[in-house]
Order: sequence, then C-alpha cells, then structure tokens
Amino acid sequence: MEREALKRLLGRVKVGKVTVAQAMEQLRHGPVSELGFATLDLHRALRRGFPEVVYGAGKTVEQIGTIVGRLHDAGQTALVTRVGPEIHEALRHDFPRLEHHAAARALVLPLGRRRRGRSGIVVMSAGTSDLPVAEEAALTATVMGNEVRRVYDVGVAGLHRLMAHRDTMLAARVIVVIAGMEGALPSVVAGLVDCPVIGVPTSTGYGTGAGGWAALMAMLNSCASGVAVVNIDNGFGAGCLASLINRAHSPRATKK
Amino acid sequence: MEREALKRLLGRVKVGKVTVAQAMEQLRHGPVSELGFATLDLHRALRRGFPEVVYGAGKTVEQIGTIVGRLHDAGQTALVTRVGPEIHEALRHDFPRLEHHAAARALVLPLGRRRRGRSGIVVMSAGTSDLPVAEEAALTATVMGNEVRRVYDVGVAGLHRLMAHRDTMLAARVIVVIAGMEGALPSVVAGLVDCPVIGVPTSTGYGTGAGGWAALMAMLNSCASGVAVVNIDNGFGAGCLASLINRAHSPRATKK
Amino acid sequence: MEREALKRLLGRVKVGKVTVAQAMEQLRHGPVSELGFATLDLHRALRRGFPEVVYGAGKTVEQIGTIVGRLHDAGQTALVTRVGPEIHEALRHDFPRLEHHAAARALVLPLGRRRRGRSGIVVMSAGTSDLPVAEEAALTATVMGNEVRRVYDVGVAGLHRLMAHRDTMLAARVIVVIAGMEGALPSVVAGLVDCPVIGVPTSTGYGTGAGGWAALMAMLNSCASGVAVVNIDNGFGAGCLASLINRAHSPRATKK
Amino acid sequence: MEREALKRLLGRVKVGKVTVAQAMEQLRHGPVSELGFATLDLHRALRRGFPEVVYGAGKTVEQIGTIVGRLHDAGQTALVTRVGPEIHEALRHDFPRLEHHAAARALVLPLGRRRRGRSGIVVMSAGTSDLPVAEEAALTATVMGNEVRRVYDVGVAGLHRLMAHRDTMLAARVIVVIAGMEGALPSVVAGLVDCPVIGVPTSTGYGTGAGGWAALMAMLNSCASGVAVVNIDNGFGAGCLASLINRAHSPRATKK
Amino acid sequence: MEREALKRLLGRVKVGKVTVAQAMEQLRHGPVSELGFATLDLHRALRRGFPEVVYGAGKTVEQIGTIVGRLHDAGQTALVTRVGPEIHEALRHDFPRLEHHAAARALVLPLGRRRRGRSGIVVMSAGTSDLPVAEEAALTATVMGNEVRRVYDVGVAGLHRLMAHRDTMLAARVIVVIAGMEGALPSVVAGLVDCPVIGVPTSTGYGTGAGGWAALMAMLNSCASGVAVVNIDNGFGAGCLASLINRAHSPRATKK
Amino acid sequence: MEREALKRLLGRVKVGKVTVAQAMEQLRHGPVSELGFATLDLHRALRRGFPEVVYGAGKTVEQIGTIVGRLHDAGQTALVTRVGPEIHEALRHDFPRLEHHAAARALVLPLGRRRRGRSGIVVMSAGTSDLPVAEEAALTATVMGNEVRRVYDVGVAGLHRLMAHRDTMLAARVIVVIAGMEGALPSVVAGLVDCPVIGVPTSTGYGTGAGGWAALMAMLNSCASGVAVVNIDNGFGAGCLASLINRAHSPRATKK
Amino acid sequence: MEREALKRLLGRVKVGKVTVAQAMEQLRHGPVSELGFATLDLHRALRRGFPEVVYGAGKTVEQIGTIVGRLHDAGQTALVTRVGPEIHEALRHDFPRLEHHAAARALVLPLGRRRRGRSGIVVMSAGTSDLPVAEEAALTATVMGNEVRRVYDVGVAGLHRLMAHRDTMLAARVIVVIAGMEGALPSVVAGLVDCPVIGVPTSTGYGTGAGGWAALMAMLNSCASGVAVVNIDNGFGAGCLASLINRAHSPRATKK
Amino acid sequence: MEREALKRLLGRVKVGKVTVAQAMEQLRHGPVSELGFATLDLHRALRRGFPEVVYGAGKTVEQIGTIVGRLHDAGQTALVTRVGPEIHEALRHDFPRLEHHAAARALVLPLGRRRRGRSGIVVMSAGTSDLPVAEEAALTATVMGNEVRRVYDVGVAGLHRLMAHRDTMLAARVIVVIAGMEGALPSVVAGLVDCPVIGVPTSTGYGTGAGGWAALMAMLNSCASGVAVVNIDNGFGAGCLASLINRAHSPRATKK
Repeated sequence: MEREALKRLLGRVKVGKVTVAQAMEQLRHGPVSELGFATLDLHRALRRGFPEVVYGAGKTVEQIGTIVGRLHDAGQTALVTRVGPEIHEALRHDFPRLEHHAAARALVLPLGRRRRGRSGIVVMSAGTSDLPVAEEAALTATVMGNEVRRVYDVGVAGLHRLMAHRDTMLAARVIVVIAGMEGALPSVVAGLVDCPVIGVPTSTGYGTGAGGWAALMAMLNSCASGVAVVNIDNGFGAGCLASLINRAHSPRATKK
Repeated sequence: MEREALKRLLGRVKVGKVTVAQAMEQLRHGPVSELGFATLDLHRALRRGFPEVVYGAGKTVEQIGTIVGRLHDAGQTALVTRVGPEIHEALRHDFPRLEHHAAARALVLPLGRRRRGRSGIVVMSAGTSDLPVAEEAALTATVMGNEVRRVYDVGVAGLHRLMAHRDTMLAARVIVVIAGMEGALPSVVAGLVDCPVIGVPTSTGYGTGAGGWAALMAMLNSCASGVAVVNIDNGFGAGCLASLINRAHSPRATKK
Repeated sequence: MEREALKRLLGRVKVGKVTVAQAMEQLRHGPVSELGFATLDLHRALRRGFPEVVYGAGKTVEQIGTIVGRLHDAGQTALVTRVGPEIHEALRHDFPRLEHHAAARALVLPLGRRRRGRSGIVVMSAGTSDLPVAEEAALTATVMGNEVRRVYDVGVAGLHRLMAHRDTMLAARVIVVIAGMEGALPSVVAGLVDCPVIGVPTSTGYGTGAGGWAALMAMLNSCASGVAVVNIDNGFGAGCLASLINRAHSPRATKK
Repeated sequence: MEREALKRLLGRVKVGKVTVAQAMEQLRHGPVSELGFATLDLHRALRRGFPEVVYGAGKTVEQIGTIVGRLHDAGQTALVTRVGPEIHEALRHDFPRLEHHAAARALVLPLGRRRRGRSGIVVMSAGTSDLPVAEEAALTATVMGNEVRRVYDVGVAGLHRLMAHRDTMLAARVIVVIAGMEGALPSVVAGLVDCPVIGVPTSTGYGTGAGGWAALMAMLNSCASGVAVVNIDNGFGAGCLASLINRAHSPRATKK
Repeated sequence: MEREALKRLLGRVKVGKVTVAQAMEQLRHGPVSELGFATLDLHRALRRGFPEVVYGAGKTVEQIGTIVGRLHDAGQTALVTRVGPEIHEALRHDFPRLEHHAAARALVLPLGRRRRGRSGIVVMSAGTSDLPVAEEAALTATVMGNEVRRVYDVGVAGLHRLMAHRDTMLAARVIVVIAGMEGALPSVVAGLVDCPVIGVPTSTGYGTGAGGWAALMAMLNSCASGVAVVNIDNGFGAGCLASLINRAHSPRATKK
Repeated sequence: MEREALKRLLGRVKVGKVTVAQAMEQLRHGPVSELGFATLDLHRALRRGFPEVVYGAGKTVEQIGTIVGRLHDAGQTALVTRVGPEIHEALRHDFPRLEHHAAARALVLPLGRRRRGRSGIVVMSAGTSDLPVAEEAALTATVMGNEVRRVYDVGVAGLHRLMAHRDTMLAARVIVVIAGMEGALPSVVAGLVDCPVIGVPTSTGYGTGAGGWAALMAMLNSCASGVAVVNIDNGFGAGCLASLINRAHSPRATKK
Repeated sequence: MEREALKRLLGRVKVGKVTVAQAMEQLRHGPVSELGFATLDLHRALRRGFPEVVYGAGKTVEQIGTIVGRLHDAGQTALVTRVGPEIHEALRHDFPRLEHHAAARALVLPLGRRRRGRSGIVVMSAGTSDLPVAEEAALTATVMGNEVRRVYDVGVAGLHRLMAHRDTMLAARVIVVIAGMEGALPSVVAGLVDCPVIGVPTSTGYGTGAGGWAALMAMLNSCASGVAVVNIDNGFGAGCLASLINRAHSPRATKK
Repeated sequence: MEREALKRLLGRVKVGKVTVAQAMEQLRHGPVSELGFATLDLHRALRRGFPEVVYGAGKTVEQIGTIVGRLHDAGQTALVTRVGPEIHEALRHDFPRLEHHAAARALVLPLGRRRRGRSGIVVMSAGTSDLPVAEEAALTATVMGNEVRRVYDVGVAGLHRLMAHRDTMLAARVIVVIAGMEGALPSVVAGLVDCPVIGVPTSTGYGTGAGGWAALMAMLNSCASGVAVVNIDNGFGAGCLASLINRAHSPRATKK
C-alpha cells in the first residue's frame, strides 16, 4: 500500500468510516512477498515513498506478470522498465489497464485516477538518440507524482537552441540532463541555473564514445558545481531522484 | 555581491535609506573581474545563488590572496578548498578574519555575522580516512547557509553502528554519504530513507581500491534508487549540491 | 575413480572380496585419457578430491558426449556447466541417467545413489538475475557432497529481507554470496558472521555495471575482512571452493 | 573482550569465582567506542571471532595510540598493519609489551601469554619482493591463533624449488599463495592439493605488471578450481580468511 | 616469386637453360599489384622470405578469390587465415588444389609438391578451446617450410600432463605456447627449456578473462626470461615468428 | 638552415652577392648530426618547414646545451620545451641571447630579429590551471612565425565570459582550445565558428579527471564537427599544428 | 540556405532581380526546425559554412526521410552517414536525385549541379579494411566542395608502396590518414610533409587492437609533430575538418 | 657452474687432468641455495643456459651482495639490473672486478676473460630517452656471449635516419627495437628484414603515452609479421631472448 493510501485508510479508521477488520484485511500483506524467483519488497512504498520498480530486462513474461499482479494486489503502482511491446501484448489481457509507453520502453499499471503532478522537474536531452533514456526519466517522475517539462535535442553545438529555453530552465526546481557523446550539456545548463542538475550519460555513440564512458567522465568532472550523476542510461534513477528532490518541501525538517 | 545583500540594498534604495549614487558605488563591480591569470565570475553569486569558489590546489599564495581580496571587495564570501595551513599563515595578516578549517583543508573569509543555518543536511562517512572529504562537504554546506549533522565512521561492516543513527537519517532532507573501499554505504542508507542521497567516493584504499574507482563504480550501480554521485573526493561538490537541494523550497515553482 | 570408491575397492582387496585381477581391471584407466581434442585428467579425482569438471560453453555435442562417457567409464561423476537444454536433449539417449538442471544451466551424470550431503554451506543472492550463477554454485557444491541452503534476492536496498535470515547465516560454515550491480552484499554479510564468505560478482547490469567489474572491485575492497572473491559469474568455482572449505575437517592436520 | 575470555568469565560467574558486580565491571564497555575521529567496533571480537584490526596507513601516532589503548582496555588484542618502526618507537613507552614485526610492517599488543597456535595454514610466496605481504598474512594468522608454515621464493620459473615442498603443501588445510608478476603460482599449487588456496596478488613489478593487476587477473582466471582471491597486497585479509577456514571445525554445523 | 624459385631461375639463366626472354616473362610482375581495393605487396616474398598472407576476416569471396589468383599467378604460395568452409566451397572450383584446414580456419593454395619441413618447432596449448589458434600457428609454420610437433591440452592445473612431454620440449629450437585464462603455461615451459618461447594469449574465457587480457598481461610479466608475446589469438603471427627463428641458421651473420 | 634563409642564400648566389665557396661553407651541415646520445635531424627545417624541437624533460643540461649549440651552428632556431628556470640559468652564459619563457616552461634561442608574425591563430583556455599548456602552444606558434591572440579562463560554467570574445573567435583562421576537467570548451567554441578547432586536453584535475582522460574523451566525442585533438598536455603539438594550418596559403596546391 | 546561395540571393535583391517579397519567401525558414524527435539546426549552414549532417545509425527510415526533406526544403545539401542500401531503397522514390555511396555507407541529396571542387586534400589508408572510413572522409570532403585524391592500402609494412606516392603527399594542403592496427601511418606521413595530417584510427583488428584504441593511442603519441586525431572510425569528422583547413584561404584574417 | 665450464670440467675428469675428488669439490653446490630471503636457483645455468639474473630494484645492498657472492662462489656470472652507482660504490670493495654499466643501470661480475661474442644481434632505439632500456638489452646480450651492434635515435619521424642503417639491419639474425611514444619503429623495421624483431615498449612519454601502454599496444598490433613483444621497459628480457634466438644454431634439432 502506498503512503498516501495508508494515510487515508488510517484517517477513515479514526473517524469510523472503516472498521478495524476491514482495515486489517487491506493491510494483510507482509513487508515481503516471496515469489520463489524473487523476494518482493512490499514495504518499500511506505519506507521510501514509492513502490519497488521492476527492471524488466532479462525477466520472462511470466515473472513480470506475477510481480505486476502482486504489486497491484498490494495496492501499489507497478512500473516496469526496459521492456518492449511484446511484453505489453502478452500481459494486456490479464491487466486491461496496463499502459505501454513505447518511447520510454516501459509499462505502467496505475492505481486509480491520476492526479495532476507537482511541477518543478525539467528533463532535457542533448540529441535525438538520447530520447529513450529521457522518456524513461520523464515517465518515472510522472508516475511518482510530478508534472514534467521536456526540452529535447538542444546539444551544445548550437547554443541558440538551448538559450531559447532559458525561462523553462530558470523556473525549474531540478533539471535532469540526458547526454551522450562528450556529455557537455549538464555543465552548460548548471552554469545557468541555481537548482540541482542530474546528469545522465547515455551509451549512444561509437569509437571512444561507445558505452557512454566519455559522457560519464565529463559529467563527473563538470566545472560547474551543482551536478550529480547517475549510471549510464539510467533514466529511471534520474527520474526517481528528481522526484525525491522535488518534494523536499515535506513538513519534516523545515524548522529553522 | 550576494543575492541576499543585493535584495537588501535595492530595498533600501526603494525606501530612500540609500541614495542612487551610493547604490551605484556598491554595485560598481562588473560581472567579470580580469585578474590576468584568471577571469573571476563575479556574476555567479547572483546567477547561481553562491559566489565562485576557489580550488586552491596548484595556485600560489599570491594568486589565492588576489582572488580572496577581489571577492571580498565585491561583497562576496570567499571559500578556498584544498589548501594547507601554510596558505593561512601567509594570508592571515592581510585578512585577519580569514578562518582556517584544518580538517576540511579549507579557508573561509566570511562576510559578516553568520546566521544560523537551515537544517536538513546530514553528512555521513564510512571510515576514518574519509574525514577530510566529509569535512569539506560539511564546511561547504555550512558556508552556503545550512546547519549540518555529522555521522562518521559507520561503515557497513558493523551495521549496529549505522542503525544507531536511524532517527538522524530519517529526519534529513538530503544525506551526503562519503565512502571509500567498496563504497557500499550509500546503497544501504538509501534503502532506509526517502530523501535524496549524494554519494561521494573517496580515493583512500590500496590495490584495486586505490584512486577511488571501486567506490565510484559501486555508487553508480547502487541497487537502491535515489542515489546520485559526484567525482571522487569531491566533498565541495557534494556540499554544494546538498545546499541546492535543501533550499528547493524557494517560492518559485511551488504552484501546483 | 573417485577417492571414496578407491578406498572401498582397496578395502575389498584387503579382505579378499575382490581379486587382484578384478581390481586391476577396474583401475585400468591411466592418469590421463587422450581424446585427441583434449587430455582428460582422470587423476584429478584422486589428487584433488573431485573429478575434472567440463566447461561446456563452446564445446560440441560430440565433444561433451565423449568426455562424459570417458569420465563415466572411469567411475567418475560427470558435471558439465554452461550448457542449454539442447545438449541434454541430444545426449539423454546415450546416457539415460543424465540429469538436466535448467536453472544452473548444467548437466550431471551421477555415479550411484546420492548420499545425503554434508551441511554447512549457504548460497545467497542479491537479486533475481543472479539466479543462474547462484544455482551453478549450489549444484556444484551438491554434486561434491554437500547439502546447500539457498537464500535468494536479499540485496542491501532492503535490509529487513536479509535480517530475516540471520539464523541461517550464523549457522553456516561457509557462505557463498552472489551479487551484481554494486556488489555490496558480501561486505554486509561478512560483517555479521564469523565464517568465510566467498563473493561471486555477476555480469548482470548495464552501463558501468555491465560485465560485473563494479561488483568485482567492490568485493575485492570489502571493508569487512573474511571475504574472498572468484571470477565474475564463476558459480562453479565458488561452489567448489565452498566444498573444499566445508570438509576441512579431514583427519589430516587436526593435531594441535 | 575476546570470545574465549568472555566464555571463561561467564564460567567463573557460574561457579561463583567471580561476583556479578565484578563481571559487570569487566563487561562495562559498550559495543561501540566513540573516539571522535573513529567509531571503534568493540563488539566485533564477539560477533566475528577477532577484534577490529587497525589499518595504520595514514593514521597519526596519536590516533593509533588512542585506538590501541582503547582495545587493550577492552581486553582485546591490538593488531596494527602498514606501519613503520617510527610508530613503534613513538608508542613503546606507553605500551611496553608492544611488539614490532618489521618484515610484516605491523605492531601487535598481545593480551597475555600466547598459546601454541592451531596448525594447518601454509603461507607461500613466489618471489623475494612478495615478503612484506607474506609476512603480514603469516602474522595475522598467527595473532588469530594459528601456527603458520612459511615457504618463500618458489616461483614457477624453477619448478624444482616448489616440488621440494610437496609434503608441506599436501599436509595443509588451507594455503595462502602470494605472487606478483604473472601470478601463476596459485594455479600450480591448487592443481597439486585438495585444500582451498587463497591467492594474494602483489603490486611488485613494473610496466604492465605495476600495481598488481596482471597477477590479480591471472588468479581470478585460474584454470585450477579451488582458488579464491583477495585484494592486491592484502596480506591481512588473506591471513584472516585462512584463520576463518582453519577453524571451520567448530562444533556448529557438523551434524551430518 | 618466392626466394627459392628466384634463385633457381637465375641459376638456369646463368647456365643457359632459360633464355633471358623467358626469364623476363616469368619475372614480369612488379613489386606491387594494384587490385583497386588492395595494393598487393608481391615483393614481400623476396624481401621477407615469405609472401603476403591474406587476413580473410571481413573480406568478400570475390576479394579473396582475386588475391589468391594474383598470388598464384606470381608464383607465390597463398595462405588465407580466418575463413570458414563456405569460402572454400565458393572457391574450390576456380582453384582445384586449394586446401581447406578446418581446425585452423584457413585456406592454402600450395605451389608445388611440398618438401619435408625443417624440424625444431613445437606448438603447445593449455586447453581445448585454444585449438583454433594453435592450429593456425602450426599451419602457418608448416606452410613456411617447417615440420611442427603438437602438444595440446597440457595446462598447469595438472603438471603431470605437461611433464610427460619434457623430451619434446627439450628437443625444440623454439616453442609456441597458446594459453587463455590465466596464461601461466608459457612461464612454466620457459622455466624448463633453453630455447625461445613465444606466448600467444587467447580470448577464450569469461568474466575478467574474456577477451584474453588476463592471459596477455600474465605472459608479458612472466617471471621466466625468454618469453616473447604476440597479440591475443594471433596464431598466424606466432607461427610466422617461430619460422623466422627456426631458420636463423642461414649463412648470413654466422661469422664469429 | 631554415627554409626562408636557404631561399635568400640561393638568391644571393644567383645574383653574385655570395660566392659558391661561401655558400658551400654555409651549407656544410649534413642532414643528420650524430651527437652520440642523439641523431639530430637537421634536414627537418627544410623538409617540414621548421627545425627539430627539443623535448627537454629528462635531458641533462649538457645534452640540451649540446643540441641547442648544434642547431644554432646550423642556422636554425632552437626551441626547448618542458624545462625549468634552472636550465636557463645554467646555459645563459654560453648562449647570451637565450630567452626563458617561464609561463610556457620553455627556452628559445632565436636566429635574428623576429619579424611580425602572421595573424589568424587564437589560443583559448578553460581555466587558470591550463595556462602552462596554453602558453606552450602560444609560444610554439609564435616562434614558428605567427602572431597569437590569447583568451584565457573562459570555461563553459559561465558562458558570458566566453561570449564576450565572440568577435575574436569569428576572426580566427584556427583556434587552439585548452581544457581540463570535462573538456567541453572545444565543442562549444566549434559550434560557434567556421574554422578548425584544435582541442588540447590537460591533466589538471583530480579523481576521475586526474590525468586528462576525461577531457580527452570528451574532445574526441565532440558533437560539434571540426574538432581535432592532440595528446594530453601537448601544447607544443597544438601550436605547431595551428601554424601548419595557418600558412596553408602557400602557392602550392591552390590551382583549382 | 547555404552560404553561397544566400550571398547570391542578397546580390539579386540588391540589383532588383528578386523582389523583397520573393526573397522573404525563400528565407522563411527559422534558425531551428522542430521535428518533434529532433531540433534541426538550419542556421548551421550560415554559421559554420555547411549544413547539419545526419548521423543515420539508429534512426528510422521515417526520421531520416523527414530530416532529408526538411533540409532540402531549406535549400541545404543533405548528407546522411552510416546507412545501408535499404535506406536508399526506401527513400529513392520520394527523392529521385538521392545518391547512394555504397563504399562510404552514405546518402547525399545534392542541391544542384556540382561544381568542380577545390584541390588540396589527400585521403590515405593503411589497409583494405579501412576503406569504409576512408570513403566516408573522402565523400564528406567532396560534398563540402573539395576535390579529393585517394591513396589506399599503403601501410608501413611495405614502405615502397608508400614512397611511390611521395609527390602526391608533397602537393597536399592537408592529408587525412586512416589506419587501424598499430596506427603508425600518420607518423610516417607527417615526417615527410609540411602540411597538417589528420589521423583517423579505425576499429578493424582483433585482440588488443579490437575497437581501435591501439591505433588511437599511437596517433595521439605520434613522434612526428603536426598530427591531430579524431574519434575512432570518424571519417566524417576528418573529412569535414580537412575541408575547414583547405579553405583557410578566405579573405578574413589574411592581413599581415 | 655454467654450461661451458661444466663441459670443460667433465672433459678434464675424463682425461684424468682433474681427479674425481677435485671435481666433486667444484660441483658441491646444490641446485638451490637458501639465502633466507631468497631461494637462489643455481641449477638455472645448466638448465636454461645462463645463470639467474638479479633484479636489483627494491633489494638492499646486503641482499645484492649476498646473492652476487653466492653466484660467484658457484662459478656463475652475476648480472644485476636496475641499480644505481651507489650500489656499485658499496660493493666494489668486496668485489674488485665488479663492473658498473651506468647507461644500462647494471652491475656485472664476470667470471674470467671475456671471449669475443657471437655476432648477429642489433639493438635499435627510436629516441634518446629510450637509451637506458636499450643499453640494458645490449648489456644483457653481451654478458650472455653476443656481440651487439647499436643503432640509436632513428625514429620514424625522419625515415632517412633509419634508412642509413639498412645494411646493418639486413645483416642481423635478430633485431631488438626499443621505442616509446607511438611505438611504430618495430613495424617499419620488420617490414624491411627477414629476421625476428623483438619490440620493447618504453614508458617514456606523457599524457596517454605515459607508462608505455600506447607503444605496447602498437607493437602487439603490428601490421608487419615477425614481431614479438616483451614487457614495457624490459630491456633485460629482450636481450636475453635475442641471445636465445641468436644461438639457435646448436647441434640439437638441426637434423632435417
């Protein structure tokens, strides 16, 4: 059960709208679900603020279907990354509400009606081939309750393309910058704004750029402060981190 | 001139406490100060929220003294990283208020009376040899207006040492985790909290661990989401990024 | 001929149950069997305590069939690693008792009725994708005469999953820990127990984690002492080493 | 307090030789000792079977002295690795019983009269320059209660030197093999024995061999099964692991 | 035209068995043959003692056919490496005498009746998967006029397999040693003999051994002197070098 | 003798101002000067357009003095790179006209009165620590007959510093861009201009940036076309190449 | 619109051959064309002297078709690199004038009748497998208005093949040298000429040469000055850079 | 005792010039001499044709003195590599005939009057900084009984310097080629001769060339066949190997 849902449930118990027995039924899932091939961490949604996300690469249709079902039963949003349309095709009969996000190579089984997300996150990409990673980041942040602005294909070889989006950058609370090749975009963006920048190196490229190491090293050595980096191609990690940063406004720790 | 000071100055002009001529005198510094050997970015304090920070390694006493003086004249806090006590010794006559932070290997020339910082940042280290980097991170965040909690030498080989600080971790808005060797601490910490974790690999160690690559790679491949990484030994970068995250509460972008 | 069988044979010769001529017939195989494409080390079972194991990757069905047959004729258990079901399919007519262990990607042609193994070995994995390597380790140890406890998918991002198995860990004489990504699990486990831990990095992952180097380097730099490492994905090596450690109780060298 | 001492103490309480108050006084140390610059894990001796060992490189005389004193007060053996004679010189006034082991670059402050160690461990080295690492391994194992056989400078370029020690190898319960350059000795040794072999690559050498990576990679890819590897130059880790393997005879887990 | 043939031709001109016109016709090929896609070095057979060898990987059937034909027309032996049976199939109609050496993955179009080769070269391999490289080395040396002894699958994990061939090794003038994994065999062999040893690392293996770097680094750091190394999998280069060494008996430079 | 000087000499011979004997005396130096420890290529000035340049690192004062003298005798400009003031101190008695360029760490012994150089080369640096490399490039180009514009400390973290020099960049015929850390400046500059850009990565930095590999890889993977790269810290090479490009106006090859 | 075309258009407006309205229609394209999946930089042809070039690898037929069409509409030459014949097949109906250059793996949609290019560029290759990269370089330079001389398969193992082309080399204004394996050709060529040499390492090869790193490192460390390097296999980049160098004769910056 | 001396001794025993008792006295040394810190392989001179050579780096004066003395007592030539003049200074009192070869950084204690060596070995170097390695190779070969031709500083940037020595190269039976930087010289030399070429990469250089990896990789990927490689800076290994090749004329294995 996700954090918001739990809060609502306990509120209803308090005011008598839900009986204790009903609440216990809804809370019957333990912190861990043993699936044989996996130990699903159902407690994660409470502890960390969002449910366990499924890395789809290398998992069979059956494994993915089992996990998605278990998460859904436990009242948690299911997000599956790195999967193609064939997985969606195979599972959509069992889960009619399952959404396929082709550009992000991901599946989402939402919990209910989606509310409007919290603004503040911008996702930028340097080139066209960075799109799958950028979309994975954007979708992840969206699923976690944010509204995302996208600015794509604005690499440093043509600064006028980037400068046209200066207002969007200045309005952001956190910016995710996806770049392959020489990975220079995060440095240039971070030099222009006063919010955190998350660099995501991509593995597109060839020769010394193949695999994304050049972009990774560039981002780690950014001459502009305020840049943090995640693993090569890790759009999910960047979207998740951006979401954590974007809601840093929670009541906790705001005393001064 | 730093952002807060500028706001105050303009407020005084508005209410007539300061004449336009006086304000112009105070604002006389251009966005760039040409020092011959360097092009100081005096505009940075306004654009990015904090002044240019001086990386001291490899600079001469004269160069550091010139830059510190210029920043001070421009009404900006001067922070110099990676310097030993001999630099302090050589400069303290010219700058009597210059502070030497030995553990952080840094100098600070503050602007005025320091106000109490904003809470929310925790700096943790896995081992004893990670202290210089941890202190650089903590000092940076402090100079940028935060109040920092320190939790040191709590590596994963003895989990009970770490668990004793669970409340501190849960109360944080952002946690900086410094670790060398196998760099596992950020993963374990991120698995316990719901705030962003910034991993800082350190170069302490020997054999395959020498130079910090093992720790860096571990942090980039964290199985716990919500971890971002900065360059090896980059305490300054982590402290700066933590500060950017911690004040993400600014009025901008909070509409929903 | 394996060690135990040889001891039994010699015992029977001593008490007259087997004639010298019969024993010679059974011992006719020399220490080496020249197969043209390979020089089979039939002496290994005596010298090292277990027969030569066949690394199946890149060998043809014919080569594997020839080696398995020769080992069987020499009275030795045949273990073939890194093979798919098609090899089993092709060979099961010739060797009706040949077992296919799909999860471990291995074949076994046992010698006789299997006796209950010696307890003391635990095989743990950090994630779901580590299973093939974990099963290879577990099967190897089982074939070599051990009884293996399995604890899977208990990575450090959710410590409560790991802690639930503390008793199993404390009861072990040696623990094999399989992990990809940041490879932190061996360090955390070794910090909790007083028996040797064998870390096996796996090549699952992407970006900087692809190939298993990040996990390998993490394990080599473990801050917890008592961790040794084998090659990336080398489940067989870990299982074999665990078996050697587990039977270190032999009469030899126990004087004190 | 170390494990054996605790057992004795509790035994004395049981039979009335020690009062509860006296026992409490002796057990007053908590599981962690906060030293400011370090969080000493005093619980480790109980949990893992031996006390925390001090990695001396990079620590000041004062820090080492403080830790050694605290360990000694807590009734634990102090072992300090990677230190030169000048540390011994500076501390021997405060700790008259402190021993300096020059070849192993280590200090030991023993608890009482040393009992004869448990046999079964052999430490071998391929060359003369591997001696410091070999001695660190041998000393570590000795301090942890083992009696160690040493066989040095028997690299594979002259097999007759190695073969002269075949009996010693065959009698071992675990062999630590130290080698730099091409790191071939562990493979050759493991091919001759039926006990676990721990390979320790050393950083001696030049060109492509500098730093020990060639030896490390060779050991990880050993064609002889039964070889595990620790970090480059990690004599301490190998000695510690050998000790854990050598006492795997404890009553626990021996049921069959 | 190869060196021997040229010598014979000039001899015949001298004694009048061949007219100058006839000789000119036979010598009509220039030092270079422009094929459009390649500049064939026909002069190489004279200058270096053997004709240009064709690296077949990545060349089309047409390209290979053209080169083989041109070499044959110029009176030179054609050796094509790294080709599969399909190339042989496609070309054997045009070149009925073309030989396919499957194990060596090579084609040979010989010039005439092969004479018995010069003895002195031994080719050894550590494992079964090293065979294609070993056969490429052996075939190359054979084509260049040597008679080769083969000793396969005698890796260091079972020294008795190696020692059985000591006489063969001691009789050699040069030994080519092929090994993957930890690449230890060249060191052990070189320690036993007084002739040059050429190490050839192979790319067989997995994990850190994948690609052959571990074996390469081991051979470069051999503790036994007298070992030279060629590129990973470069059986051709080793065979060619062995041939150059084996015929170092030429009349030139033997004065003393 | 340098190219220009040779042309003048031959012109004078033609018009009778210099006798043949006098010219022969001046041209007496052969193409190579054997110094025992070096084979000086005196022909290079004619063949390549500038004399051999002396890489000073690791050479003794005597060696440098000998070479400088020989070049001077042969009528060639002597440029010595990577030397400190102590070399100048030791040689200035013998060569009173020897110039020491401290910032460039170089010595120059000019031939005569320097003529005004050819404009068209701009040398830019990203940071302050890149100055020694930048000055080496600028001095080299100057010695080779160019007039160089310098634009220093204009890294991408503050684009306004760079944009202030747009006119200088647009007027260039070739731009040398020196940068360490993430090496992004060449990409940004190349995106703004239509002349060749030569990127020079520098080894300043720490962590993953130490040694200059991050900057090198960034420049090799520039998303802006028109960027070529030289070795890390190779200011000399960049200055020399810029000079070659800048004089591509020679009469040769201009027919169209 | 390309630079030359713009100059002609403005000239016609000036003399009244084209009305202002007609000119505005032709200039209607903005500096950027938003294609959804890409932000096409139409301004590049003006700013940098040639239009944006399309890296075809990984793009769909639809994406390539859209970009080619948009460039064509904007009056710019379209060059698509790294594409196979199937892309040409799919697009040639829509663009009848589209040319397929098989050896260069590229497509070109030219603007009008091609004028004779400017001479001065030589493209050389060391081996046969370097041809695709060499052709990509040659085609790029040709499309950008140069006439290219090709000299292929002249690697350093047979210097006479290279020396036969000395005149061609000496007549060049810039030489592009393509080489895989040990990448020695650029050094040898640069030692013979006085024009810039652009080295292009190729990824052909195997073992340590696979991927092109050996050739790249060789070229970066050339002992001959005047060599710059581009990314592995980056024929396009080299051709483009050569074109920039070759037209460095523009009126700008030639004052002296 | 060295091989030649042993043959002479046995010949004298046979003809009665030496008594059996005298011979036994001279042969009293066993195959191994235990020195405590080392196990000297006195058998090596017989088995491999030359005595064990002492790698001096990291050994103390005492250790070197002990080994030199023991070798001398055993009637074997002592060669110590990688030592400075201070070692010579310290030992020359004890060993008055000890020779110091400064350029080769080596010591030699010869056995008797040196006979004229066997010709056939040429040692070449590409640059001036390669001299120490080249001299180590030349001295090693000389001590082992060869007469060495030296050709220094003939790198590929000026081919005329190399071509001047073509006759020397063509007369060689084996050529050792020392080169740093791009390591191209072995390829060029091997393309000109028909004898084996041994490449020795050196660690001179900077940037990507530092450490010698660029040169090593170049030599391993030589496009000229007939090149073998030894470790970076391994002049000793190359000299030793050249000697083994040069005396391949021994009566053994010459039957045909």
